[in-house]
Amino acid sequence: MQNVTLGIDIGGTNTKFGLVDRAGHVFFQDQLETEAQRPAEFLFERLFRRLQNGIHAMPEKVTIKGVGIGAPNANHYTGKIEDPPNLSWKSVNLTALVRQHLDLPVSVTNDANAAALGEMVFGNARGMRNFIEITLGTGIGSGIVVNGELVYGHDGFAGEMGHVIVEKNGRKCGCGRLGCLEAYASATGITRTMQELLSSSDKASILRNLPLNDLTSKQIFEAANAKDELAFEAFEITGRYLGEELANAVLYFSPEAVILFGGLAAAGDFIFKPVKKYMEANLLPIFQNKVKILPSGLAMSEAAILGAAALIWHKIG
Amino acid sequence: MQNVTLGIDIGGTNTKFGLVDRAGHVFFQDQLETEAQRPAEFLFERLFRRLQNGIHAMPEKVTIKGVGIGAPNANHYTGKIEDPPNLSWKSVNLTALVRQHLDLPVSVTNDANAAALGEMVFGNARGMRNFIEITLGTGIGSGIVVNGELVYGHDGFAGEMGHVIVEKNGRKCGCGRLGCLEAYASATGITRTMQELLSSSDKASILRNLPLNDLTSKQIFEAANAKDELAFEAFEITGRYLGEELANAVLYFSPEAVILFGGLAAAGDFIFKPVKKYMEANLLPIFQNKVKILPSGLAMSEAAILGAAALIWHKIG
Repeated sequence: MQNVTLGIDIGGTNTKFGLVDRAGHVFFQDQLETEAQRPAEFLFERLFRRLQNGIHAMPEKVTIKGVGIGAPNANHYTGKIEDPPNLSWKSVNLTALVRQHLDLPVSVTNDANAAALGEMVFGNARGMRNFIEITLGTGIGSGIVVNGELVYGHDGFAGEMGHVIVEKNGRKCGCGRLGCLEAYASATGITRTMQELLSSSDKASILRNLPLNDLTSKQIFEAANAKDELAFEAFEITGRYLGEELANAVLYFSPEAVILFGGLAAAGDFIFKPVKKYMEANLLPIFQNKVKILPSGLAMSEAAILGAAALIWHKIG
Repeated sequence: MQNVTLGIDIGGTNTKFGLVDRAGHVFFQDQLETEAQRPAEFLFERLFRRLQNGIHAMPEKVTIKGVGIGAPNANHYTGKIEDPPNLSWKSVNLTALVRQHLDLPVSVTNDANAAALGEMVFGNARGMRNFIEITLGTGIGSGIVVNGELVYGHDGFAGEMGHVIVEKNGRKCGCGRLGCLEAYASATGITRTMQELLSSSDKASILRNLPLNDLTSKQIFEAANAKDELAFEAFEITGRYLGEELANAVLYFSPEAVILFGGLAAAGDFIFKPVKKYMEANLLPIFQNKVKILPSGLAMSEAAILGAAALIWHKIG
């Protein structure tokens, strides 16, 4: 008999779920279309049917100890998603929906917080009690751990580092405000930076052969791999914005490490080196050369499920 | 028999101490010169002699449950002061020094953290589990409470909001870096702002009658009280810097309240109104109109002792 927790990651297009033991071994995983145009009940009915079939097919018996859910705009305190972006649901009580199928502890949070807990329970933040996890994807999310616990704030909405204003009257952000970190240091941000560089400079770049408006962060990474100077510059600028704001975040949290996760973090040294350089250059002396900048220790393909599953393992120890 | 804790606040010139019960009643208080040019042992010998005399003279018997100390650069994890500014001691183990006199729990932190705990145990943050205390004095300190506990970070140095860079290549700060919040929103900061306004504008101001280099924040407050337009402007600029950075801090912490403490906070609406205005104007919509900006609930004359005494009351409940 194996004790596991069920991790569910609800995304705009697909929902992934899986059973995870205390050591981070994923026993079973599956995914299905979220179909957010239909009621959320429909997602959970399909998910639990698939889960049941999966469990029947498993050679070993499992006991599910609880259900962790990562979802956009999910609030830990209420167990609800409220006005999620990319989902047509208005307000969904995730805890109540799960309880229609399983009478077990349910813990809910947003994707970035789930990633942070996954890192603490299974990944590169094991044993750490103070660290910052940053998800560098289309947007920027952050999950911050203080004294071994996630920072939720008084209403559950803490940890929105992506919307710190890093450039007064800067780029328009998806949130409607100007100059947010997310508008500079996300996959979208580096793409905008590259577009600006291609327009404003006349340096040679292999990216000039591609249509400017369809440029992707992956193409910028490939160009950097091919030693494209302008692509290096785009990573340098991106890393500068993130590194400078991390120097501020360190003043607030004095974390043992900052862990970079997500698509843009997969660019490795191209992004890690400038982030580290500009963070150190802007740190108050007492913090210099103390804060590690680390990659995630979770495999990309399993990270979302591990993060969600970690919500329960973190609680029950 | 009355249970009390001993609170000690070590300053550059004077050291205050007192006995405080669970309700925040100060039974006995006294102060003496720190005399930091002599060994720290000498301070503690004099302090405990004075305390003993004080206790003998008290009508009621007391039991001291522990000793809390607030001091510049004091580290909660090590119990030491390391290279304190304004004190000629290099490294002093405060816990060990107290234990030479009293075999009781000792808890040590810096002044701003002590103020935050004082606020949580005795002041306007009673019942709050997530808030930010900001001390606006000659410099800026901050004590941040998350999930009911102070944010110390992995090394004890967290909560240095005064050194967040709010103006790239801005004013030189005492720390040697450029553009720190402290260089704008402290008593020193508003004085520099007023000096700049007096130099750069030709608006009438009663402060023009005073020698520019001897200007104090108190004089700016008095001028604002006398409806001096340029003094209003100085408070507006000061409040803008602090309010804008608070909008960023709210993204990290989502606190129930921000509490402003210290000399500059005593200017009341002159500073609270612009802080609130610029914070709200820069908040991500989900945080708007939710975060209170409050004055401290501790009497200035007792705050330092209450904060230090709260270190122990917070532990023993």
